[in-house]
Amino acid sequence: MNKNKLKKIVKKIFLKFGLNNNHSEISSNYIIQAELVGAPTHGLSRLKMYCDRIKKKLINSKPKIKIKKISQSVSHVDADDAIGFVAADIGIKKAIENAKKTGVGIVAVKNSGHYGLSSFYAEQAVKKKLTVLCFTNAPPAIAPYGARKSLFGTNPICFGTPTGSKVPFILDTSVSMINRGKIRVAARQGNRIPAGVALDKFGKPTTDAKKALRGVQLPIASFRGSGLAWMVDILSGVFTGGNHSGKVKDPFDDFTGPQNIGHLFIVMKSNLFVGNSYNKRIKDNIKTIKKLPKIKGVKEILFPGQSKHKRYKNNLKNNIKIPKNILEDLEKLNSY
Amino acid sequence: MNKNKLKKIVKKIFLKFGLNNNHSEISSNYIIQAELVGAPTHGLSRLKMYCDRIKKKLINSKPKIKIKKISQSVSHVDADDAIGFVAADIGIKKAIENAKKTGVGIVAVKNSGHYGLSSFYAEQAVKKKLTVLCFTNAPPAIAPYGARKSLFGTNPICFGTPTGSKVPFILDTSVSMINRGKIRVAARQGNRIPAGVALDKFGKPTTDAKKALRGVQLPIASFRGSGLAWMVDILSGVFTGGNHSGKVKDPFDDFTGPQNIGHLFIVMKSNLFVGNSYNKRIKDNIKTIKKLPKIKGVKEILFPGQSKHKRYKNNLKNNIKIPKNILEDLEKLNSY
Repeated sequence: MNKNKLKKIVKKIFLKFGLNNNHSEISSNYIIQAELVGAPTHGLSRLKMYCDRIKKKLINSKPKIKIKKISQSVSHVDADDAIGFVAADIGIKKAIENAKKTGVGIVAVKNSGHYGLSSFYAEQAVKKKLTVLCFTNAPPAIAPYGARKSLFGTNPICFGTPTGSKVPFILDTSVSMINRGKIRVAARQGNRIPAGVALDKFGKPTTDAKKALRGVQLPIASFRGSGLAWMVDILSGVFTGGNHSGKVKDPFDDFTGPQNIGHLFIVMKSNLFVGNSYNKRIKDNIKTIKKLPKIKGVKEILFPGQSKHKRYKNNLKNNIKIPKNILEDLEKLNSY
Repeated sequence: MNKNKLKKIVKKIFLKFGLNNNHSEISSNYIIQAELVGAPTHGLSRLKMYCDRIKKKLINSKPKIKIKKISQSVSHVDADDAIGFVAADIGIKKAIENAKKTGVGIVAVKNSGHYGLSSFYAEQAVKKKLTVLCFTNAPPAIAPYGARKSLFGTNPICFGTPTGSKVPFILDTSVSMINRGKIRVAARQGNRIPAGVALDKFGKPTTDAKKALRGVQLPIASFRGSGLAWMVDILSGVFTGGNHSGKVKDPFDDFTGPQNIGHLFIVMKSNLFVGNSYNKRIKDNIKTIKKLPKIKGVKEILFPGQSKHKRYKNNLKNNIKIPKNILEDLEKLNSY
């Protein structure tokens, strides 16, 4: 389907479910963006879930979002259970404003929800020539090192900085070895999963996808990744006033309350210390790394965000493909 | 040897090589700390290297360190090739001061050198009830994803926060799968190394330690770890004015110039957003995670920094064991 047409439909659906025009515009935009960068898990496939949560008042369609000024550089957003896209959009825009004014902007958001891709927000800062770190927590998906029960979310670490070209450097990496969707697909197709990515329900390593589904996913790099996931849970949950330590509810399965996800945005002027030479420095950095001898089969060393950007540019030219079940969702929601 | 006696010897050696009293005190302190936390790779085994570099004027024994105030929160330290311990010590203390005053302290250090363990600096901030991120780069040790030549350093990510107990939460994790020392030991003993941690010089995966020594080490979690290493190189090198993209010289092997390592310290008041409840929140977080069901053989789920702290407490009671070759170094340096 044509992306503009699709966006209009998604926006109309959000309006029907009671979001105001501005919030519907923001949310539909981010959902289409996820499809365009090739992350359908964060796009249309979540639309029904968002609508269900709005209907059950777990996402507040009329939130009173408060922005508390803590200093010229620091602000705290209480999103009042707004849809995550809107809460995070306000958060990053405030962080950008603070950074433009003082060199540094730090914004914590609480009482938010799933906000799509961290890169959405990082990219906005990078477009303003800023360097940015984004942290968010998420529902339990991976087991802490030594545990046989999930608690940490996939807890992405996201970092962005300008490159002196049109393509931003955007690292957006979860700390999970594998995503649950991939295990589900393997289980359905009777395939095994790689070793070292999951445990069965007894805490034993397994490559059996079905056993892994009843067990837990593992963090990257064992205790190192577990530590990074823990760090993200503290920075985005404990520190911001959001839920933490496994208390963020799964948006698809748990309708007993709002998610209260927390986000933290740390934004700095890229030229804070090196002035106008930042552009030359980052260009030199990327150029030097790209020139390294490559392993067999590798054509180009890509910086984080580069292949996503290429996908995005390509997808812009084409219609968005929608799986049948999602199309049915769309039709049902549209006739709500 | 008794740790106080040992510290006096190390301090005397630094004085002999021309560091002033204050710089000798700081540097000897950190070297003994490394031994006490069980990280001898960052302790006495580096003393001769530091002295060699001072003698060759690659470490400046009389640096004119400049601290440039960029705002109430932000400072830039030009360490003038001071020994890394002193440069970083000044940097973290300034960041702490700024954070105490304004809620946030951001300090970049350039023209520094190897600073020992990141946790040394993180712990100082945590003792003042602050939450801290430290980044530093290092000489080439791991290959970027797709390359068959080392470029990134082991580039640690370090995060610290108070726990409401005497033991700080200190995550100090390199983004390398294995350290070079371990590969050297395996090569000497004829043992194989684990799969997936190194490539041979042709860029092929290898478990042969000797081939790995002629090849490259790999980052954790393939492209994810490579992205994290790249992020650290940008934050601590490109952003601060330090060397980057593989230009940090190996302190043991390369005497053609100073290292010009960069560090970045981001320090925030832990109670910035949640006020006095931070203590309760972090305690709840840790308690909840510790209560999870454990995998077989695991007695306790430890938070990052906990086992290091335990080691430190134990080692405080005992003498420091010094390998013979290091003892010989000490004697030679002491009679310089």
